[in-house]
Amino acid sequence: MRYVDVAIIGGGAAGMSAASRIKVLRSDWNVMVFEKTSFVSHAPCGIPFYVSGFFEHFEELCTYDINHFRNERGIDVHTGAKVVEVSEGAIIVEENSKEKLYEWDKLLFATGAKAKRLDVKNDELEGVVYVDEILSAERIKRLALKSEKVAIIGSGYIGVEMADAISRLGKEVTVIEILERPLPEYDAEIAAILKSEMEKIVDLRLSERVIAFEGKDRVERVITDKGEYKCDLAIVAVGVAPNIELAKKLVKLGKSGAISTNSKMETSKEDIYAAGDCAETINIVTGKPDWIHLATPANKTGYVAGVNMAGYELNYPGSVKCQITSFYNVEIGKAGLSEYEAIREGYEVVSAFVTTKSSAKYFQDGLIHLKVVADRSGRVLGVQAAGKGVGMRIYGATALLYKKADVRDLFFADFPYYPPVSRVWDPLVVAARNLFRKLGMP
Amino acid sequence: MRYVDVAIIGGGAAGMSAASRIKVLRSDWNVMVFEKTSFVSHAPCGIPFYVSGFFEHFEELCTYDINHFRNERGIDVHTGAKVVEVSEGAIIVEENSKEKLYEWDKLLFATGAKAKRLDVKNDELEGVVYVDEILSAERIKRLALKSEKVAIIGSGYIGVEMADAISRLGKEVTVIEILERPLPEYDAEIAAILKSEMEKIVDLRLSERVIAFEGKDRVERVITDKGEYKCDLAIVAVGVAPNIELAKKLVKLGKSGAISTNSKMETSKEDIYAAGDCAETINIVTGKPDWIHLATPANKTGYVAGVNMAGYELNYPGSVKCQITSFYNVEIGKAGLSEYEAIREGYEVVSAFVTTKSSAKYFQDGLIHLKVVADRSGRVLGVQAAGKGVGMRIYGATALLYKKADVRDLFFADFPYYPPVSRVWDPLVVAARNLFRKLGMP
Repeated sequence: MRYVDVAIIGGGAAGMSAASRIKVLRSDWNVMVFEKTSFVSHAPCGIPFYVSGFFEHFEELCTYDINHFRNERGIDVHTGAKVVEVSEGAIIVEENSKEKLYEWDKLLFATGAKAKRLDVKNDELEGVVYVDEILSAERIKRLALKSEKVAIIGSGYIGVEMADAISRLGKEVTVIEILERPLPEYDAEIAAILKSEMEKIVDLRLSERVIAFEGKDRVERVITDKGEYKCDLAIVAVGVAPNIELAKKLVKLGKSGAISTNSKMETSKEDIYAAGDCAETINIVTGKPDWIHLATPANKTGYVAGVNMAGYELNYPGSVKCQITSFYNVEIGKAGLSEYEAIREGYEVVSAFVTTKSSAKYFQDGLIHLKVVADRSGRVLGVQAAGKGVGMRIYGATALLYKKADVRDLFFADFPYYPPVSRVWDPLVVAARNLFRKLGMP
Repeated sequence: MRYVDVAIIGGGAAGMSAASRIKVLRSDWNVMVFEKTSFVSHAPCGIPFYVSGFFEHFEELCTYDINHFRNERGIDVHTGAKVVEVSEGAIIVEENSKEKLYEWDKLLFATGAKAKRLDVKNDELEGVVYVDEILSAERIKRLALKSEKVAIIGSGYIGVEMADAISRLGKEVTVIEILERPLPEYDAEIAAILKSEMEKIVDLRLSERVIAFEGKDRVERVITDKGEYKCDLAIVAVGVAPNIELAKKLVKLGKSGAISTNSKMETSKEDIYAAGDCAETINIVTGKPDWIHLATPANKTGYVAGVNMAGYELNYPGSVKCQITSFYNVEIGKAGLSEYEAIREGYEVVSAFVTTKSSAKYFQDGLIHLKVVADRSGRVLGVQAAGKGVGMRIYGATALLYKKADVRDLFFADFPYYPPVSRVWDPLVVAARNLFRKLGMP
């Protein structure tokens, strides 16, 4: 048995951010991180770029090296350390095939999320793979390079980015999505821009449900309710779920299924914290608990947990839920709610959809399609965009949503004009003016 | 004598925005615009891109055609119409070499700004030109194409952009700046990035004062207090001043020398409004009157003036003062105050200067240098950046400054992570964390 001041389960973004923060504030504390893989600060967002060949060594997916945490930051990192049981004040860890008991004073769950299983016939066939921990990057790339045809099941962010990556390797890609549009969390007008770009590059199958895989020794076909598609590799990216197996007996879960936390990242039990993709936090737009499993909130909730675990105070305000990505020539991004999400949350909404050039008219830089959703009082609920110059507008939009802006703020926020990249009436401002009309403002 | 409901002096961004707004809200009103040139909605921000050849016809610098305003919007646009006198209730306009009297019910000054004269020996020599109205674009391009060596006096935004444009034409460019850095409204750390890029392309002469031009029939040399530089063309861009000749006898000017306005864009006299580059408005960061002569505020103050002139109410909140530009591979941008400006305004400041990659480490996308200035209470006063990915960060920063954000907001605002263009700890967030330390926050 060994005593530690702080035990952290999971060495990803949240866990390592918390550990780092605690050691800055309490350098004499013993902070131990238990990570079941051999990697820490693993950042799986980069997997598609490794697969498509933007860089060569998948180890670069780790933001920092383990030795950096051990030597520079004084964190006691245990890799290959699988936590098998957690109770109040103690955990049991399987390390080097032995079970060890550690007593802790404070505990952080930073167990992340895991890929949802598809649960169809023959889903255990060789060549059916999931995108989760970073080791899968190496495996997917190796298999993709040997394949002619690759099927991707699911067209959320991971599915879309993998479709981009694998088509760049010169492979024939079929993307199968159960809903009627790619990136289904976007509204139809915005997703349509992506859809038309995807259809140029891949075989995009919408509103199709995968019912089985087939093959002799390994996967040869994906079978859906509408057809069948040959493939040498099937990549499944049908969503993720919080990793709460260890936590669920000990602390309360929220409605989303993730661990319920307050603004200090405390769980329902004293001295037990949660951060990152296993934790439920506040959606700043709705003000309600939400499960926002993204890299930047993971780092920030880890940071906040670390500050509070160290005995200082910092409150996490929640997250707007903001993402950007791209598929070939279409950039796409979203901050806050889409219209259908807002309606589902009970808002009475107005929305504006505008298509303009992203830059001054004499630059050939392409169009941006932008949608702003607001409630009847004029509060902005969400911004989505597709096309060119999306990143800038989403940076502006997320900052305004964070500060609970209304359409007047969207109109008057001082977005800069530089003819090669923006417009004197920014697309965000044009959308705001459009909403003025719909809200009966002058 | 003729009666008009609304007389607008100046057909640029502010004037045409106001006129358009009034006609939307009061379609039966007679709205007359007096523009001394033959162009309306002229947008001189694009001049450098015309000069460098991004587009062929300088008329494209006009956002809309005159006929659009006349036929689609019902605005009575008079071009070649020089207002020679303004009094309460009436103006005298020189049109087709005749003076005409118009009586007005409401008046808008939208007279813009003019290039400051250099006022040195021989500054009237042929080949010494100013960048002001859009006709100068055509002239500068014509002269530049015939030149071997071009001198640019001044390295504010216009000087820097003209240096970029003219060097792209293959001409030898000398830039002469009286202060010790280019874009002197930026702090030295940020301007240094631009300086080193400019030095690769042009002969950059800092801390030199132009004292004369020399030449027989036309300019052949620029003489400074430190040397002399051969040139076939000298472009003077040493700042601008509000065009208030007509207004100054009638309405109050502010400290800045521009026309004093309230949030409805009303001047000191009833029924007389001012908008655009001739008007003084509020700087949102300082809360004080300021002269912010930029294209987007010009359009918005015009819009606000139009709403209020039409008898509705809309208040202009002021401007953060936000700009972006670039010189070859260096993007540069600023929202709010630089450190020296903040100190001059009386703030006790802290600042953070960070240099990081703009994207994930495995992308070769270059560095961003970013400086954030805050006051001792943590309120953010300004953000400056140079390098790659500047536009996105300045869009985010300007929105936060508009909403009077503090360093905690800067840390928690939900900037998106997408490895090819951003980082999991965004440079803005890294700077915020750095300021936490300096402000003694955990």
